[in-house]
Amino acid sequence: MIPLAALPGEVRLVEVGPRDGLQNDPQAVSTDVKVAFIESLADAGLRWIEVGSFVRPDRVPQMADTEEVFRRLRPREGVTYLALVPNLRGLERAAACGVRAVAVFTAATDAFARANIGLTVEESLRTFREVVGQARGAGMLVRGYVSVAWWCPYSGRADPRAVRRVVLELLEMGCHDAGVADTVGAATPREVQELLDLLLRDAAAERLGVHFHDTRGTGLANVLAALQMGITTVDASAGGLGGCPFAPGALGNVATEDVVYMLHGMGVRTGVDLDRLCDASRLLEAALGRRLPSRYLQAGPPRGG
Amino acid sequence: MIPLAALPGEVRLVEVGPRDGLQNDPQAVSTDVKVAFIESLADAGLRWIEVGSFVRPDRVPQMADTEEVFRRLRPREGVTYLALVPNLRGLERAAACGVRAVAVFTAATDAFARANIGLTVEESLRTFREVVGQARGAGMLVRGYVSVAWWCPYSGRADPRAVRRVVLELLEMGCHDAGVADTVGAATPREVQELLDLLLRDAAAERLGVHFHDTRGTGLANVLAALQMGITTVDASAGGLGGCPFAPGALGNVATEDVVYMLHGMGVRTGVDLDRLCDASRLLEAALGRRLPSRYLQAGPPRGG
Repeated sequence: MIPLAALPGEVRLVEVGPRDGLQNDPQAVSTDVKVAFIESLADAGLRWIEVGSFVRPDRVPQMADTEEVFRRLRPREGVTYLALVPNLRGLERAAACGVRAVAVFTAATDAFARANIGLTVEESLRTFREVVGQARGAGMLVRGYVSVAWWCPYSGRADPRAVRRVVLELLEMGCHDAGVADTVGAATPREVQELLDLLLRDAAAERLGVHFHDTRGTGLANVLAALQMGITTVDASAGGLGGCPFAPGALGNVATEDVVYMLHGMGVRTGVDLDRLCDASRLLEAALGRRLPSRYLQAGPPRGG
Repeated sequence: MIPLAALPGEVRLVEVGPRDGLQNDPQAVSTDVKVAFIESLADAGLRWIEVGSFVRPDRVPQMADTEEVFRRLRPREGVTYLALVPNLRGLERAAACGVRAVAVFTAATDAFARANIGLTVEESLRTFREVVGQARGAGMLVRGYVSVAWWCPYSGRADPRAVRRVVLELLEMGCHDAGVADTVGAATPREVQELLDLLLRDAAAERLGVHFHDTRGTGLANVLAALQMGITTVDASAGGLGGCPFAPGALGNVATEDVVYMLHGMGVRTGVDLDRLCDASRLLEAALGRRLPSRYLQAGPPRGG
């Protein structure tokens, strides 16, 4: 008998739709739509929202309006808007438009780090040491991400010890928490628990997060597996938007609607109003002119209740 | 720390695509295609395959060729082809074409049982007592199903004590095992474990099965939750085909491909060759002229390995 009662009472959802979701979408949306989408997500009760990234606009044109989006967003008590920054130049751009929380991102493998950010893992960590130091010095919150923490599209199975080394170094240099990402959606629940078991020997659960893609259907099972290990920070993307432009076959983050439905059904609090969250995703569906893949968004609540 | 090592070493998959899947599909497929699909599923290593049902052809025209399908299937050592039978007339039809394994199906609520089979739960159990007795007398294997075991589209949340009563009565009258079905895809993992915890007080894990629909994205998480309780019989549908014609909003069984991918990734044996299983689903996709919803079927194995 498994002690399901030991699930966390509350989970901190990090909404990554506006960044991880829209970044890879072949259809660009206007800045107006982005801002309205993000405001709707905050209306729905999401408290951590990844808004954009300060990367090179020629590499990721969908994120070129990140400054403008931050300038237009109404500050809200209790809501943290995050931006990804790859280097000091990105951090300066973020600071210039008042960003209060940033994320740095590297990978478990050199092959992926080179393809994604043009640096080896070690080089990226050297860069981040300065970025994180300056960000902390300016009073910012800082998250760290480790991509391809289970599987790399260039070099196959990731070495859990390599993931551990990167996670611990991110935490040691001052990241408030480090998120491990199944960038290509290959992990299964036992692998999730095995890696987390290793990481939890040296890091508190509160300083770890998980980021799953649902490419092969295991996304929500992986979220469950992580919660069972005591993890309380979970990334998800409204409507199930998402992917990674540099990872072949990486499709769809776990959908925030589906995660919230599962968590609420298990008595785990999120602070999110599921109906209003669906409103936010529908706003984006209207702008994109197509259905998003979240199952709950399409099915709605069970009838007959 | 959760003892994931306690997952079962092997799971018995019951492939329900040809019955639960095709039964609700708006596109009828020819008997030729059905037979080729089922043979491919057996080629892929599936050992329990629900082939059709002996219900009234005017109510479920997609199943009208079940006799013909059974006559054409080549018997295979170690493969069990099942058929649903609602009553003695259905059992006679099954026996007449040599069927060796049947399933009877009722529900956790009268409202659903009436809509689905035109009987109250008690009436259905009275009918089944005779059906199961005769089937056992003829040396057949018999499964029992309890629909809407977590949520009924007519009367809302199902009463776990009602589910328990029906499950135990099905086992007591001679069913080899009883499957609990989340017909409308509303259950979440904690609810799955709570119901199974109740059932396991009186029934061995080997005599229970689970049948999940992925309507709200929780299908694979529910499978994981059931495995953690020691359940080793899991229904799934090739390609994620499926639904129930009498349950509004019931869409898509958990996809066999996704379940197998998750199980193999966790070191749980199924006997299924995942590549050949995808071949079977692609055969059906070609006949239907559309993509099926299984995520693994569309994504394939992770690259870079």
